[in-house]
Amino acid sequence: MMVHGSGGRSTGDLIEEVFKDAFSNEYLDKLEDAAVVPGPAEGESIAFTTDSFVVTPVIYRGGNLGRLSICGTVNDLLMRGAVPKYLTCGFIIEEGADVETLKTIVKSMADTAKEAGVLLVAGDTKVIEGHGGIMVNTAGIGYVKKDINISSENAKPGDVIIVSGNLGDHHACILSERMKVDSDIESDNAPLSEMVSKLSSLPVHTMRDVTRGGLGTVLKELSVASETAFNIYEDKIPVSEKVRDFCGILGLDPVYMGNEGKMVTVLPKEYEEKALSLIRSSRYGENAVTIGEVTDDDKGRLFMKTKIGGVRELSVLEGEGLPRIC
Amino acid sequence: MMVHGSGGRSTGDLIEEVFKDAFSNEYLDKLEDAAVVPGPAEGESIAFTTDSFVVTPVIYRGGNLGRLSICGTVNDLLMRGAVPKYLTCGFIIEEGADVETLKTIVKSMADTAKEAGVLLVAGDTKVIEGHGGIMVNTAGIGYVKKDINISSENAKPGDVIIVSGNLGDHHACILSERMKVDSDIESDNAPLSEMVSKLSSLPVHTMRDVTRGGLGTVLKELSVASETAFNIYEDKIPVSEKVRDFCGILGLDPVYMGNEGKMVTVLPKEYEEKALSLIRSSRYGENAVTIGEVTDDDKGRLFMKTKIGGVRELSVLEGEGLPRIC
Repeated sequence: MMVHGSGGRSTGDLIEEVFKDAFSNEYLDKLEDAAVVPGPAEGESIAFTTDSFVVTPVIYRGGNLGRLSICGTVNDLLMRGAVPKYLTCGFIIEEGADVETLKTIVKSMADTAKEAGVLLVAGDTKVIEGHGGIMVNTAGIGYVKKDINISSENAKPGDVIIVSGNLGDHHACILSERMKVDSDIESDNAPLSEMVSKLSSLPVHTMRDVTRGGLGTVLKELSVASETAFNIYEDKIPVSEKVRDFCGILGLDPVYMGNEGKMVTVLPKEYEEKALSLIRSSRYGENAVTIGEVTDDDKGRLFMKTKIGGVRELSVLEGEGLPRIC
Repeated sequence: MMVHGSGGRSTGDLIEEVFKDAFSNEYLDKLEDAAVVPGPAEGESIAFTTDSFVVTPVIYRGGNLGRLSICGTVNDLLMRGAVPKYLTCGFIIEEGADVETLKTIVKSMADTAKEAGVLLVAGDTKVIEGHGGIMVNTAGIGYVKKDINISSENAKPGDVIIVSGNLGDHHACILSERMKVDSDIESDNAPLSEMVSKLSSLPVHTMRDVTRGGLGTVLKELSVASETAFNIYEDKIPVSEKVRDFCGILGLDPVYMGNEGKMVTVLPKEYEEKALSLIRSSRYGENAVTIGEVTDDDKGRLFMKTKIGGVRELSVLEGEGLPRIC
């Protein structure tokens, strides 16, 4: 069912039931954004990841399928502390696809790869029957320096939780395009290379890009993986006025909306100001803020102090949650 | 158009027109089965490749989409002299796909990965609207030992051309399944790890798996890349009796039919007997034979001495050529 692609609980169920046992090994089982595997020589590591991209419309305000497909894979590598190096792309093109659209996507992939400092070194195209749709898979490798260990498991009580910018932009953009609502909300699709590179001078415990499933899903997963409690404050969660208005009208919750150029950083509180300053001075990081902290009160639970002073426990995205965008 | 996915000239045109210039770099431009890029440390190399797999029916005699998707990527890595190490997989699943079919595919991927000695370390699933179809992308990395240089460019006059076994089995199997013809032709989908590992003791110039586009397309591409002439002998091309009969009835040419577990090896004639013996003693290599030689008569051309004594110049697959199987 469509719900199995939501990025929330049903996707988790599908992975658990069909894939995880069959493919189980020490690298895959961590279910991180990218696997970190031994490199060719002793002591080296390589991050390796893949993602398939399907979006309607394929060209949207602020980006397109091509830019998206580079950002997604580059960001997954970055989140493990890797320096992204090489990407492959696999196009599945339905008969009747528009060649000019394809060229726009490809040009955007090339430009975004350049911005992110990666090379596309291998590709594949398949043409199938259909109605002109275009789907792209990218896989990427990055090199992980010795002694780097950034993982979902590493969040520690006393850490702060920083979000790199406004949430919900990509999701709101795609939804408004789909609904043909008059809006100028642009997708945030962006490679986070610069901010992650700057953050590499600090002892970061965990990084995670806030994509499918949104902030709530990501933080819940981190709290479970690290066996800590995550506390966040609703009034600190950054959302642009445009997106807030859009969500208000439609009854959407930015906490569960997908982004394609935002990340969460978890690191010891003593480095909070330095981290904020580094992220804010980076491209795409100007709205970075601290939204909460890690405690040891309740293992694997995520709590949000609401604007009206209550406390709400959050879980991963349930069901579709929102109109699907990918 | 569908023809752009044939693996022959139209696929080449699509790659030239849309992708090659936009993504141009020293690794991609070689258009080999896998890119060989610098590893993390000086002097190391990593082979990196991707392929998307679409086949109807998804389960066929002798294999299924899962086995196919591992073999294709493992073999592409092997063809550059790499030792395949890690794979990622990206599933694009249409709503309504049968979960038991999915499990069969996944189990087969796991079994084939084990046979090929690789680990699946990262994956992704997307669920899209549709009619129950399943598509898989795999990407893979392999480590290339120092001083290994196996490339399409390296064929030299005086080399022999060895094919590892009977041609056309995968293509004939899928076609007969599609046409619901009563047949017991099985796909040859197989990882060629053992034979390539054995061949690594010899000074092999070029290896290429004989997939989409068939032997004719592959050898023509090798003759162009190496600026040599390739001469082959029709009566030496190995085709099983079953496949020969099937092709005879339908008017198909095994020279342009796809395989998923066959390779061409090009190496100096003095190593011919040793190579044949190593391949024949390997799993899936029992029918290996020499089918021709490389000369310097006509750069970039491929000639076949026909059974009736004439000479036919062959090119890459034109148009669809055959009913499409992928």
